[in-house]
Amino acid sequence: LTKHFFTVGPAALYPKIDEFFSEFVESGYGSISHRSAQFREMYAATDRALRRLLNIPSDFAVFFCGSASEIWERILFNTVIERSCHFSNGDFSRRFYEYATALGIQSTIIENKPGKAFDSNHLDLLSVPYELITCCFNETSTGVSISNEWVSAMRKKQPSALIAVDLVSAVPLMDFDFANADMAYFSGQKGFGLPTGIGVWIVHPRCLDKAKDKLAKGHSIGAHHTLPKLFKHYSHFETPSTPNVLGVYLLGKIAEDLDKANLIALKNKQQIRSDFLYSFFDQSSLIPFVKEKEIRSPSTIVIETNDKTESIFQELLAQGLIVSKGYGKFKDKHLRIANFPANLMMEVEFIRLVEAFKDHF
Amino acid sequence: LTKHFFTVGPAALYPKIDEFFSEFVESGYGSISHRSAQFREMYAATDRALRRLLNIPSDFAVFFCGSASEIWERILFNTVIERSCHFSNGDFSRRFYEYATALGIQSTIIENKPGKAFDSNHLDLLSVPYELITCCFNETSTGVSISNEWVSAMRKKQPSALIAVDLVSAVPLMDFDFANADMAYFSGQKGFGLPTGIGVWIVHPRCLDKAKDKLAKGHSIGAHHTLPKLFKHYSHFETPSTPNVLGVYLLGKIAEDLDKANLIALKNKQQIRSDFLYSFFDQSSLIPFVKEKEIRSPSTIVIETNDKTESIFQELLAQGLIVSKGYGKFKDKHLRIANFPANLMMEVEFIRLVEAFKDHF
Repeated sequence: LTKHFFTVGPAALYPKIDEFFSEFVESGYGSISHRSAQFREMYAATDRALRRLLNIPSDFAVFFCGSASEIWERILFNTVIERSCHFSNGDFSRRFYEYATALGIQSTIIENKPGKAFDSNHLDLLSVPYELITCCFNETSTGVSISNEWVSAMRKKQPSALIAVDLVSAVPLMDFDFANADMAYFSGQKGFGLPTGIGVWIVHPRCLDKAKDKLAKGHSIGAHHTLPKLFKHYSHFETPSTPNVLGVYLLGKIAEDLDKANLIALKNKQQIRSDFLYSFFDQSSLIPFVKEKEIRSPSTIVIETNDKTESIFQELLAQGLIVSKGYGKFKDKHLRIANFPANLMMEVEFIRLVEAFKDHF
Repeated sequence: LTKHFFTVGPAALYPKIDEFFSEFVESGYGSISHRSAQFREMYAATDRALRRLLNIPSDFAVFFCGSASEIWERILFNTVIERSCHFSNGDFSRRFYEYATALGIQSTIIENKPGKAFDSNHLDLLSVPYELITCCFNETSTGVSISNEWVSAMRKKQPSALIAVDLVSAVPLMDFDFANADMAYFSGQKGFGLPTGIGVWIVHPRCLDKAKDKLAKGHSIGAHHTLPKLFKHYSHFETPSTPNVLGVYLLGKIAEDLDKANLIALKNKQQIRSDFLYSFFDQSSLIPFVKEKEIRSPSTIVIETNDKTESIFQELLAQGLIVSKGYGKFKDKHLRIANFPANLMMEVEFIRLVEAFKDHF
């Protein structure tokens, strides 16, 4: 039985992944140095493709780390001396706060009920000046998204704070306005359909200034993947230490492939499918977890399956269709369905998935 | 022109890498969660294969990080409050010291001339008690190795210090005695022939005790990949955050494959080829950089090519044979030839490599 993944991450691998891996091996890229011209060209190509795909402004730099979790720690080391504030409405955005606490930072969490929208009242809780404010554009644990307008309002509230936005399950199809942020990051195994093991950190030079200032004041900014070293090597498309070269290559190939595939059509398709799924489940007893339509994630559809969770999961599994269970405390109460590019390329399987759910209405 | 890599890292990919990657994709491993039974079985299988291959004692744990460089920082965060000491006879062992300095640790470097052996005089320089002492079992930058006897003597000199040993280019064929160490680590892209992006950290529970002690005294041990979290999840073969699952899988498959291939024969072959190469170059004007025979690395053969470096490199390249140039200040003076398992599986190409060098005697 062939397995078809509608999991929210690690998600379905991008369909051409085998082909791209073979090209990687045949070209000898698996054995090149990250100080070679070949690697520099690869880095530049991936950088170019990501910029075009995600509308990354020219002044931001694009760095590669091991995972989004690693990037949480890097952001804190490099840009915070004393105070950070973390907006959280789910487990992943909460974990960023926990990382800050573990590093001894005086960190504040502004927490909303899972699945609910942040509004201006939450912004009023920003009572003292923070060095860093973080939020998650699309919470993979609950399927709630945040609007660019809200991020913009947050920035206006504290113009001197650095803003870091989690784009983990938002990229590559949700439109994020980088003008509202100083940093953004994502991992490869969600919307891009890569194997795990690469995180992408998109950074404005304002953050480098902050890292230098922290150093100048006698604080450590860590030793591995520091912004001064990353920026220095980025100026000629190198990396301070050996990166995940396969990840850099696959990310570039997939970004180029998505760009060629008519991105606007793909974004429309993501919206059409998610609209369909939300209205489909709205009419059922398996109602969407997120009630407010404006903040329902187009990439991560979370439904309340409650005591049917395990039986529906197993029934789908028996048909080779794999979805994600709920996250954390919702493990046995939710199912989560991914709506990433690789899923949008599955037609028959998507119809089978919908049909299978109909039996439980 | 097909390229054949005798580079010291990233090195030649393991010959069956394509086959293993296809199995990975077909099995759906690219989309599984690191909290699933499938992942736990994969972790356990890789753990088992590495233990058998490298003779890792049962009390050590086996963790996965992004790279050996990341592991330097993790070792320092988790096991040092004030003082570390770093034996260095090349650029990679020196960089561990630089990481310690960047973290504000009072670190000492005991440096030897590149390519020279450490002896008991160097051990006498351990004048104050250190929390951590590090050394590199096989310096990839210079091709000098350290004996198990010397590591044992170091341990006897400071029995209370934790000992961390870099095995990056020593594994999987050089015999390291884990009884002399509390931690060891390596990356996948050298002797195992993996793509870059995975580091393996082998840790005795004594190091966990130290991390807990550091925490209890009010110090931060970092937030990402901390020993308490790694050990906790390891108890059921999980990881605290999403690891490089492809790396974990490939490492296990390659370790199993090497084990089946008759490991003793492979170790003998590494010794025979390195003996041959050293005596071959000893008789030429391209003399080995390491003069003392006892410490010549069997996996990393470094020769002094001086003003012929570029011309020999280019001539080999024109034949599809790729070796590494020197490292750091030796970039234009040395060539480095890898003698890893993937290289030992190349017969015709090895003969062609030797023939090509003959013209320069």
